[in-house]
Amino acid sequence: MELTWYLLIPVAGSAAVLYAGWLARYVLSQDAGTAEMQQIGGMIFEGAMAFLSRQYRTIAIFALLTAVLIGVIVGGISDGVKNIVLSDAGEVQYGQVEVGQWTEGLLTAVAFLAGAFCSGLAGYIGMFIAVRSNVRTASAAQRSLKAAVTVSLRGGAVSGFLVVALSLIGVSTIFGVFTGILNYPSAITPFLIVGFGFGASFVALFAQLGGGIYTKAADVGADLVGKVEAGIPEDDPRNAAVVADLVGDNVGDCAGRGADLFESMSAENIGAMILGVAIYTVTGRIEWIMFPLILRSFGVIAAAIGLSSVPFFIKEDGNQDPMTPLNYGYYIVSILSVIGLGIATKGLLGDQWYWFFGCGIVGILTGICFVYITQFYTAGSWRPVKEIANASRTGPATNIIIGTAVGFETTAATALTIGTALVASFLLGSNAEIPGVAASTAGIFGTAVATMAMLMSAAYILAMDTFGPITDNAGGITEFSGAPESARHITDSLDAVGNTTKALTKGYAVASAGLAAFLLFSAFLDKVKERLEIPLTAELPIDIANVDVFVGALLGVMLVFLFSSLAIRSVGKVAGEIIEEVRRQFREDPGIMAGTSRPDYARAVDITAKASLKAMIAPGLLAVGMPVAVGLLFRFVVSDLHYGGGENSGWLAVSGLLIVGTIGGIIVATFLNNSGGAWDNAKKYIEAGSLKDDAGQPIGKGTPTHAAAVVGDTVGDPFKDTAGPALHVLVKLLSTITLVLAPLFIA
Amino acid sequence: MELTWYLLIPVAGSAAVLYAGWLARYVLSQDAGTAEMQQIGGMIFEGAMAFLSRQYRTIAIFALLTAVLIGVIVGGISDGVKNIVLSDAGEVQYGQVEVGQWTEGLLTAVAFLAGAFCSGLAGYIGMFIAVRSNVRTASAAQRSLKAAVTVSLRGGAVSGFLVVALSLIGVSTIFGVFTGILNYPSAITPFLIVGFGFGASFVALFAQLGGGIYTKAADVGADLVGKVEAGIPEDDPRNAAVVADLVGDNVGDCAGRGADLFESMSAENIGAMILGVAIYTVTGRIEWIMFPLILRSFGVIAAAIGLSSVPFFIKEDGNQDPMTPLNYGYYIVSILSVIGLGIATKGLLGDQWYWFFGCGIVGILTGICFVYITQFYTAGSWRPVKEIANASRTGPATNIIIGTAVGFETTAATALTIGTALVASFLLGSNAEIPGVAASTAGIFGTAVATMAMLMSAAYILAMDTFGPITDNAGGITEFSGAPESARHITDSLDAVGNTTKALTKGYAVASAGLAAFLLFSAFLDKVKERLEIPLTAELPIDIANVDVFVGALLGVMLVFLFSSLAIRSVGKVAGEIIEEVRRQFREDPGIMAGTSRPDYARAVDITAKASLKAMIAPGLLAVGMPVAVGLLFRFVVSDLHYGGGENSGWLAVSGLLIVGTIGGIIVATFLNNSGGAWDNAKKYIEAGSLKDDAGQPIGKGTPTHAAAVVGDTVGDPFKDTAGPALHVLVKLLSTITLVLAPLFIA
Repeated sequence: MELTWYLLIPVAGSAAVLYAGWLARYVLSQDAGTAEMQQIGGMIFEGAMAFLSRQYRTIAIFALLTAVLIGVIVGGISDGVKNIVLSDAGEVQYGQVEVGQWTEGLLTAVAFLAGAFCSGLAGYIGMFIAVRSNVRTASAAQRSLKAAVTVSLRGGAVSGFLVVALSLIGVSTIFGVFTGILNYPSAITPFLIVGFGFGASFVALFAQLGGGIYTKAADVGADLVGKVEAGIPEDDPRNAAVVADLVGDNVGDCAGRGADLFESMSAENIGAMILGVAIYTVTGRIEWIMFPLILRSFGVIAAAIGLSSVPFFIKEDGNQDPMTPLNYGYYIVSILSVIGLGIATKGLLGDQWYWFFGCGIVGILTGICFVYITQFYTAGSWRPVKEIANASRTGPATNIIIGTAVGFETTAATALTIGTALVASFLLGSNAEIPGVAASTAGIFGTAVATMAMLMSAAYILAMDTFGPITDNAGGITEFSGAPESARHITDSLDAVGNTTKALTKGYAVASAGLAAFLLFSAFLDKVKERLEIPLTAELPIDIANVDVFVGALLGVMLVFLFSSLAIRSVGKVAGEIIEEVRRQFREDPGIMAGTSRPDYARAVDITAKASLKAMIAPGLLAVGMPVAVGLLFRFVVSDLHYGGGENSGWLAVSGLLIVGTIGGIIVATFLNNSGGAWDNAKKYIEAGSLKDDAGQPIGKGTPTHAAAVVGDTVGDPFKDTAGPALHVLVKLLSTITLVLAPLFIA
Repeated sequence: MELTWYLLIPVAGSAAVLYAGWLARYVLSQDAGTAEMQQIGGMIFEGAMAFLSRQYRTIAIFALLTAVLIGVIVGGISDGVKNIVLSDAGEVQYGQVEVGQWTEGLLTAVAFLAGAFCSGLAGYIGMFIAVRSNVRTASAAQRSLKAAVTVSLRGGAVSGFLVVALSLIGVSTIFGVFTGILNYPSAITPFLIVGFGFGASFVALFAQLGGGIYTKAADVGADLVGKVEAGIPEDDPRNAAVVADLVGDNVGDCAGRGADLFESMSAENIGAMILGVAIYTVTGRIEWIMFPLILRSFGVIAAAIGLSSVPFFIKEDGNQDPMTPLNYGYYIVSILSVIGLGIATKGLLGDQWYWFFGCGIVGILTGICFVYITQFYTAGSWRPVKEIANASRTGPATNIIIGTAVGFETTAATALTIGTALVASFLLGSNAEIPGVAASTAGIFGTAVATMAMLMSAAYILAMDTFGPITDNAGGITEFSGAPESARHITDSLDAVGNTTKALTKGYAVASAGLAAFLLFSAFLDKVKERLEIPLTAELPIDIANVDVFVGALLGVMLVFLFSSLAIRSVGKVAGEIIEEVRRQFREDPGIMAGTSRPDYARAVDITAKASLKAMIAPGLLAVGMPVAVGLLFRFVVSDLHYGGGENSGWLAVSGLLIVGTIGGIIVATFLNNSGGAWDNAKKYIEAGSLKDDAGQPIGKGTPTHAAAVVGDTVGDPFKDTAGPALHVLVKLLSTITLVLAPLFIA
């Protein structure tokens, strides 16, 4: 591969970091608003940073312990040798590389910590800026819509670009160190750096769980004790939980989703590099391994150009839907991605490159499809949300019944789109004739190209996503600080757009998980083949009619449900503690309700933080522990009972758990995300007066119909913001943990 | 095999029919109660029979059309020859039997119609007696608890024994005719009679969907318009929908569940016989094919003895929990089943019989486990229901959130139990050394023995199940006819037991579906092997990492959610039509509310029936059509696009859909059944005054907490009585339809 290609990676990575720095400087240079605003902004900032510090400290301890465990386990089961079997035109040649038993353990543990650190760093800096952007957006909203959009989008983009840059820099640096400095062959290295992906998943799991529980417990708790019990409006300063609620938007939506997509990109990058090894062993061309990093580099450049173009599309008069300029920016990113995809495939993937170019187009189209599917199911202008709003007339029960039916229904569009994308990219890829490479190997690489291409726009999508909590918070600050009506109007319209962009990102995350499942599973099988000393290009069927695989599959789907159950229940528990605290404050200081004294916000924030961190542990341990437990149980117990040998029981059961658990996770996450989004917007639809009674009069706030819709919205909260997003992380964690620990399950 | 064994089958089958006849005579000879009771009983009888007739007419038309289609398709794709490849010590010998192309189509169509007819007949007669038992139970409740239990249990048992007897007689007769009169070899016949199972599934699907939608739409509709809108009590005669509600209990719970278990037994019988063929081809012993029929014969005898013993355990004083004698009866059935299992395995399964005896014990224990798991999760004395009741204090939203979390959680116990049972029975079976038979073939047969053994108690379980709607109706009749308080007290206590037995049966049905999935899927693979001319004992891996299998799997899980969505939504729609009708009657005749004139019950019944039958068509067609559509799409479209051959795409995609769809179906059905049951009992827990406030006072009816619990109960209705049970049928239908149409998906 030519040097120019290699250079592209650090150049794009550094450019993204510089761009993020420039954006951060821009945001911080903006006016921070009135003293009132700065006061509440300061409280949110302190609360969010305090939670994040405490959360990262907890995660750091877990991560260090896990790193030691990984080092010991991987070292203990390593035979010190990596075997890459080169299959060339039917002849099998072993490529053995001496790594050293404990060196392998150490390298994996180091990669794990590097992944965990990068993920944490991206989350921390991104949130630091996002929380600073809230109050500046609130201030800008007093000037103009254009100013508010620019500040909030740029604030969100800091997180987006840092996440992408750190993933790109992290993976390429560790790959560069292992090959360039430690001198491991390129065919071995992707197998040694899988720990990086696991580290990223590990942090993402706890960040998403802790943040997701925090944000929804605070939301549900504040609403139940404020709106329902005390009869005061949302974001009213008399409610002690209101700051916790505003803090929650940041720690759940910003930090959580950032860690989620950091993990996606890192794990899928490494997985795709492993798939590239299979073709590299036959063709001898390093391009197949480096391709994912190159494509990501083009992607981040495309995203930066698209983002910079947004302000040009904002009209000064303020009569524009703020979603319009964001959509234009997305189109620019997509067009530039197609161009980058063309250059990368033509330059790197041989004379049959156009097949893989086609795969990439499939991936980019899949991303666009999900944007529209999510809008159809969760935006108020279409049938599903109207149906739920309408069902609210007969009370909360019918609201929930129809909302569940809609949520179940949305899985169809998701499954059909992912299924079509997988089949199409596999078939396109399998048509590429690469001498010595089986059509199925090329096909699987095709699905990897589709995944990578879809993720080219990740930085832009993440910027739009973080835009959501920033504008949500800006609205809260505006209300809390008693700013003028005109500013509230601007933040309201931005908040509505933010709800849409948040929903889009979830759809995008599910789609990327779905496409990636296939490539990550194939990477896992490559790791098994490496261990079993089978050529990477050979077939290794996982027979779903085998009892070990079948039971593993059953347990995989069950894991998805049990994990969701724990996550949902945690929200209820923590919300209960918040309610108790707010009640106590109301009771002990009557001045709060009268408005003469301020409630103790910090204490409510503190209680929420502590309870959320405690609640994240059980589902987190289940997610990490169950694949390991199943693998060990089948390897050591079940296999011995097999008459006539069950030496494959361990990794077969894990395979079933991994792949069918992933399918279940994608479907259930879709249900949870979309039903929650639809319930939320059904409530908004009624509040906007769009639902009419028989006489044609709007049925608005304060009616039993609206109360029924509020029930649905509250039910949807832990679905869409706690359990659903945590499931995205879970399915990828399953892949990375099994990738790292694969040898543990092989007898 | 000795003649005595053969004779056992018709003897047990006829004995069961005679026993059912004797029970029916007993019930019909009981006092039919006061004129008032007879009047309402008559209305329920007419409504139920009218619905059933109309429903069966619709199903009959569908079934006839489907039979013609099956005949044409199976005939059209048949090559007129059945190939059973006999593998003996490594040597492969083909056993080809000339069947004739169109003969095969005709035979399959005839078997389909026979299965459909038997299922319909069992449902019809069973419900005829059940509806007659309602009013007699209400009358008996005025005398004593013992009389009421005896009448209702015997009424329910008519259905239970007819279902089992007709399945046993149906399968053995058609097997006898094909082998004895048409002279097909025993190794071929099980493949020719798979249509019987599909016919049973087909009727069960529509019976369960139509009945399930009817019962819950009437229930939800009557409650919303009566209790909520008009403020009149449940089962109040002024509510025009009240008779429809009572009719619904019969058509949903009796006819639906009967068809469900008829299908289970028939499909699993035939599937197990196909698995027996694999061992028969090696050993030449017909016992392996006949074993399932023999075991079923022992089972029906055990059930009859157990049922007859129940009255002896009922205490005259009436201070006994009516569940106690039912439990004693179940223990007797279980013990006798173990004895029958021992005789059958020792007599038929060779000198390594004890391994299969162990498999059977696993199956019987699994049945018992499910009885306890269901009770834990849905009965008021344990943590889950109390947790939901407690969450109702903070309103309907937290009730739904915690109920969902509990429902998700219950999937863990189900998956662990089914997984353990499958692994244990497979491992035990695989230890049986049968010369020339692979350990895995014996292992799969072991899972079939476990399934068969679990289903030995089916007649008894079904009797307990049908007991539920009979006592529910008896309670309604008692209330409606203004019978004395003491009678109401007895029917209330029976109704509570009926709720438990209904929940148990659902758990039992899920467990049987879970265990059977594995055997039915193996039977499907045997059919594929037969068509591909591969020995039945050979390995034929279904690689879940293959893109066709993976996408099929994704679509299978999606089918489960989309099907549930349609079923749940139908309930909402039909309930809306009922509400409109009752409102109309209240509006047009003010005398109804005043109690001076009677509402037009028949019209409400009629509207519900029509709307339910219309609503069952969409989900029904989806269930039947989707596996066929996926198979054809992959066989004809996707396979052509595969570079380097995708000739297996069709049946591979169908395999993925079938097996992973089954896993998804079992898990989602468990969630729907148990969350619904738990919500129902959380409401009852509050109504019984068991939930206390901070001062220790019971929080009962009429409180906001109770209202919140009612919301959960209403949400749970379509979950547990429409979508959940319909999913049991769906997963088995997937197996039978693919068994029949397997050659269609093979290029």
